[in-house]
Amino acid sequence: MRITIIGSGNVATHMAAAFKNAGHRIIQVYSRQIQHAAMLAYHVGAEATDDLEAIFPDTDIFIISIKDDAIAGMVEALIKHQKLIVHTSGATGLSTVRAFTDYAGVLYPLQTFSKSKEVDFFTVPLCIEGADESITKLLKELAATISNNVYVVSSADRKILHLAAVFACNFPNYLYGIAQQLLADHGMDFNMLRPLIMETAQKVQTQLPALVQTGPAVRNDRVTMDAHLQLLSNQPQLQEIYTLLSQAIIKNNNEPHRDK
Amino acid sequence: MRITIIGSGNVATHMAAAFKNAGHRIIQVYSRQIQHAAMLAYHVGAEATDDLEAIFPDTDIFIISIKDDAIAGMVEALIKHQKLIVHTSGATGLSTVRAFTDYAGVLYPLQTFSKSKEVDFFTVPLCIEGADESITKLLKELAATISNNVYVVSSADRKILHLAAVFACNFPNYLYGIAQQLLADHGMDFNMLRPLIMETAQKVQTQLPALVQTGPAVRNDRVTMDAHLQLLSNQPQLQEIYTLLSQAIIKNNNEPHRDK
Repeated sequence: MRITIIGSGNVATHMAAAFKNAGHRIIQVYSRQIQHAAMLAYHVGAEATDDLEAIFPDTDIFIISIKDDAIAGMVEALIKHQKLIVHTSGATGLSTVRAFTDYAGVLYPLQTFSKSKEVDFFTVPLCIEGADESITKLLKELAATISNNVYVVSSADRKILHLAAVFACNFPNYLYGIAQQLLADHGMDFNMLRPLIMETAQKVQTQLPALVQTGPAVRNDRVTMDAHLQLLSNQPQLQEIYTLLSQAIIKNNNEPHRDK
Repeated sequence: MRITIIGSGNVATHMAAAFKNAGHRIIQVYSRQIQHAAMLAYHVGAEATDDLEAIFPDTDIFIISIKDDAIAGMVEALIKHQKLIVHTSGATGLSTVRAFTDYAGVLYPLQTFSKSKEVDFFTVPLCIEGADESITKLLKELAATISNNVYVVSSADRKILHLAAVFACNFPNYLYGIAQQLLADHGMDFNMLRPLIMETAQKVQTQLPALVQTGPAVRNDRVTMDAHLQLLSNQPQLQEIYTLLSQAIIKNNNEPHRDK
């Protein structure tokens, strides 16, 4: 297919590369910042523009991967071309596109992307939604050219997924950062913790998290938890996080066959 | 070396197997529950006992891997054999053994173990501490037979590591569980989130967590955060966790070269 990428952030960058690698043709990359558009366009052999009026009408699909609150305005600017318009946002409904056109869809990659790190896109779950059956079918086929994990997901469910991703990715990463800082404060190397982080993620690839919960909270080991809070005595925010999460683990620990 | 394992939990099980595989001889496994001792002893070709009086004096090292609050009592019961005594606890000082004997050490594996999942012990960071230089040297050599990541760590630093491990492992696993439950409540498969969890852990294997933080909080995207809190409106505990962690991320987001 001929694809136009609107945006040049992490999702746009990785998705454009995946489409290019799958044999699609990236016609053009639009970004408000021309140097960003140019860099991505260069990588995927496309034209770059920062001018909405210079967007080529001759494409098969516009993939909008920009800030959520800018999506509606962008759709409005693109409808005159009468082409399929999809966005890549987890938190935005299909209705944001559909308010302007019935030729609407969503292509939401459930993954965390950094420009500095390659991702095997075939492992990325791609959640698609089409305004009608034929668009859903088309998007399913398109998605299957870059991912082995394509799911048809409603806007309501996609919002739940997006929320769940905050708990599964953004918050754990923040907690990794706390751990790293605790070690750094005592002159210790974050490498000491990296295998633990990997193993923790690896464990839940085959098991349910609640069944592999470990640590002082799930054992209700008050002595250790008190000692930990003592170590955090000059960091009230970390104490608060420690207490809240520990209490939640204690409260939720009513699973009979827990593997401690 | 001839090794006696005191305990039959996850750490005892994985460490005993690692020593056995490295060519050491596991003499005996003690557990208060004879069937647990027997199962582990069977796997590592050792004798099993649940009787403190039946512990063989003819060994080189007692490795105590039992509940923290039971360690001191166990050391007291073992000192008469006048052999090296180490424990495997992150939260317990060397002093707990040293209160009874100078022939004391610590062998703390910084990893999360489940009986149901194999671990490559050579990747497990092993933190050792000896009561004197010669014990430290001996433990370093012993640890190096089962791990490629041996660190000499003081009791004070080990307590920090243990605390950091709660943030790097126990709390993230609990958050994975929240995500899994959110999906289950809406009939969605946890497999949709598993690649995201792996990638999040993988990212910090080469980069610092603060530099790869993503999500609505680090962007200070209030609209998305409000929408997420709305989705959690009948789960006040999850709202509280969401709010506290998001506020902490916003507050700590003053890193200039952040990769969003």
